[in-house]
Amino acid sequence: MRLTTFSDFTLRTLTYLALHPDRFVTINEIASAYSISANHLMKVVQALATTGDVVTLRGPHGGLRLARPPEDIRLGDVIRRTESDAAQTACFGTPETCGIQPACVLSGILTNALNAFMAVLDSHTLADLIVEPESLLVLLDKNGPSGRPCKLTADGAHQQG
Amino acid sequence: MRLTTFSDFTLRTLTYLALHPDRFVTINEIASAYSISANHLMKVVQALATTGDVVTLRGPHGGLRLARPPEDIRLGDVIRRTESDAAQTACFGTPETCGIQPACVLSGILTNALNAFMAVLDSHTLADLIVEPESLLVLLDKNGPSGRPCKLTADGAHQQG
Repeated sequence: MRLTTFSDFTLRTLTYLALHPDRFVTINEIASAYSISANHLMKVVQALATTGDVVTLRGPHGGLRLARPPEDIRLGDVIRRTESDAAQTACFGTPETCGIQPACVLSGILTNALNAFMAVLDSHTLADLIVEPESLLVLLDKNGPSGRPCKLTADGAHQQG
Repeated sequence: MRLTTFSDFTLRTLTYLALHPDRFVTINEIASAYSISANHLMKVVQALATTGDVVTLRGPHGGLRLARPPEDIRLGDVIRRTESDAAQTACFGTPETCGIQPACVLSGILTNALNAFMAVLDSHTLADLIVEPESLLVLLDKNGPSGRPCKLTADGAHQQG
């Protein structure tokens, strides 16, 4: 009953981009900050570019950034896309794999349960994930300081450097 | 965002037992009816016996049956047990695997979403899964007629045979 790693990495990428709104960041930078695989992130970023959540820029100063304000990116919409078909139903069965599927009530109950799950996610946007930006930036900075220009100054303000 | 095969087989087993309330059924009978592996069902049945949902009887006429009326078996309780720790949270991260976990709001949002999912399952019992017993029994009968004494008569009544 967990979301996939693909959903995990997608939400982490979006969170990172929301915390660095003023510039293009690289995949390596995100991978380093979370100590996760840049190869895996490639696919995540491609999907986010396809759905229009991020814009990418090629070249030496290229990278990616959010295409829309975090307030406009609903978590439910993100998860529906990353979990694709699986998000439509939590049921296991198809008529091919489950002999009682045609008369089964369970799939309807599971669909209702999944709708309730998604309704909670639909009530939140990416902006809700960065309500404590300073704490998040400090934690991200522990993992991969190199190549990450956004750091905290002594007074807590963000500084490009 | 799907439940595990273990949950799947657990719900199928409970449904089968609820449809055959008057006798002990064997694991092979259930496996045959659903065309699934008896080996996998062994573990499911052991877990159901441990949690007190079924009683088992050894010997040539042995097998298993429900320990309680279907109305007393809440689907939420079943899924919480079969999904174990995973049912408590849909979040991926621990402080070891996710660097921002200490300041992350996502785990709280996902927990709320999961609670909403479980609340729907808690509003249903095993009895809700067998509201159409005749249709279910016909479909089960297609897969494994041998060794399954419960069949429909012409007038739709159940007949032990």
